Amino acid sequence: MNIIILGTIGIDTLKTPFGLAKEVIGGSAVYSAYSASFFNECGIISVKGNDLPEKDISFLKKRGVSLEGVRTEGKNFRWSGEYEFDMNEAKTLKTELNSLASFEPYIPESYKDAGFAFLANIDPEIQLKVINSLKKPEIVVIDTMNFWIESKKDKVIEAIAKSDVLILNEGEARELFKTPSLVKAAKNSLKLGIKAVIIKKGEHGSLLFTKDDHFNCPGYPLEDVIDPTGCGDSFGGAFISHYSKSKDMKKAMVYASVIASFNAEGFGLSSLQKVSMDDIEKRYREMVSLRSF
Amino acid sequence: MNIIILGTIGIDTLKTPFGLAKEVIGGSAVYSAYSASFFNECGIISVKGNDLPEKDISFLKKRGVSLEGVRTEGKNFRWSGEYEFDMNEAKTLKTELNSLASFEPYIPESYKDAGFAFLANIDPEIQLKVINSLKKPEIVVIDTMNFWIESKKDKVIEAIAKSDVLILNEGEARELFKTPSLVKAAKNSLKLGIKAVIIKKGEHGSLLFTKDDHFNCPGYPLEDVIDPTGCGDSFGGAFISHYSKSKDMKKAMVYASVIASFNAEGFGLSSLQKVSMDDIEKRYREMVSLRSF
Repeated sequence: MNIIILGTIGIDTLKTPFGLAKEVIGGSAVYSAYSASFFNECGIISVKGNDLPEKDISFLKKRGVSLEGVRTEGKNFRWSGEYEFDMNEAKTLKTELNSLASFEPYIPESYKDAGFAFLANIDPEIQLKVINSLKKPEIVVIDTMNFWIESKKDKVIEAIAKSDVLILNEGEARELFKTPSLVKAAKNSLKLGIKAVIIKKGEHGSLLFTKDDHFNCPGYPLEDVIDPTGCGDSFGGAFISHYSKSKDMKKAMVYASVIASFNAEGFGLSSLQKVSMDDIEKRYREMVSLRSF
Repeated sequence: MNIIILGTIGIDTLKTPFGLAKEVIGGSAVYSAYSASFFNECGIISVKGNDLPEKDISFLKKRGVSLEGVRTEGKNFRWSGEYEFDMNEAKTLKTELNSLASFEPYIPESYKDAGFAFLANIDPEIQLKVINSLKKPEIVVIDTMNFWIESKKDKVIEAIAKSDVLILNEGEARELFKTPSLVKAAKNSLKLGIKAVIIKKGEHGSLLFTKDDHFNCPGYPLEDVIDPTGCGDSFGGAFISHYSKSKDMKKAMVYASVIASFNAEGFGLSSLQKVSMDDIEKRYREMVSLRSF
């Protein structure tokens, strides 16, 4: 397996101004791996509960996603969240960690040679265990979340420093580096020794900073955002997967942005599950056109 | 005079986390006209007080800005505002309308043939008087502000409908069209019969929507925003002025974004006053490069 994705498998209850979705499949590993599957094969490292039947995640296998690294233990992780009018930030209504609380990542032998890893939002100590198990990683992309920045900042920094590309959203960037300036936050994150940092700004697109270069990736202009859950994970999964083939971070960001835009157009994974490669290529061409002058 | 700019001449007191500037020259007409002067000549329609000596605004004349349409009456308009850590929105500490309260625009004969007009943020009834005085306008660009949307919405709509290009910021767009979706707000504004709408998003750049086209203009990545006062006016003035020569809205937006970025790097007009055309062209080339992939 050339790409591995570490993250959660969740059962989500999602409330937005457009409706309610109860107990739907979610979690950072699920969104990331599904999104990755448009461009390449990947394998998940995660844990699910006994109350989540195998058949409920078997759609991932059909997309070339390996579930060999998924353990089954106890009761499944559940999250319920609500979005208000502006849809910018989820308000967490309830989190039940369940089997995630004692999760020890199982890394199959066939995963250890992976050249590409996306460590989605999860406890940074688990991210470190996975990084340390990789024999010859080419690019490790790491995501985090304000919850971990607030509770385990040292471990977050340690895990970032052992990675190559940091992906985080603008609020997290400002919080982690204690500055309102995204440019300063980016410069400070590069000082940790990573190759690149990507700051996600929701509908406003995303920014890539490397030591010598800066790229501004636009957001796709969506008329309606139905449910933004998983957009960040979709971005990360699509990014690592496209990059594993193209070796072009900028192009990978534009494709990742396209995938995240489709994800926002329906509850849970429902919208992404209807998307074809033709749809993706069409929206990619629109992204090229909307920035030409 | 081929370009006219309607707006305020103010005496501002500005407080940001970087310091305090007391009683400095400001106002929407001043920022707009100074910014316009990089690309073309223009004339201001405004009012100043007897307490603002002619010599304090004579720097505009040296930039080819006509002050023939500026009346002198009573005491000058004063505004004081404060920006907090994130620098996104000014908190108004005090507004003294003074001579602005009874302002009747004086439009010199030489202004009435103007092909290009920028109606910066001011009472929409004054904007309407100026629109109605123009004999053969080619493009009228109009800006507004939530204060007028809340207090004189009908007049704001009437003035927009008589214009060609609406410029407003994302908060105002959402408020005016009662939707969180900028795409919907843009579509609704085009229904008023205008040719184009530009939604400004501060550091996140700006969006242009016409009936058949969409353009995403990036924000220039500033390491430090010292004082964002006047950035929107700088954008509008630079836009109309560049457009009057280039007839290219997209290029005009990128140059307008560059001018606004310089404006944010110092208190009041101080940073813009140090900028050369070479600086502008250099930053324009950076803008081209940061969106290439």
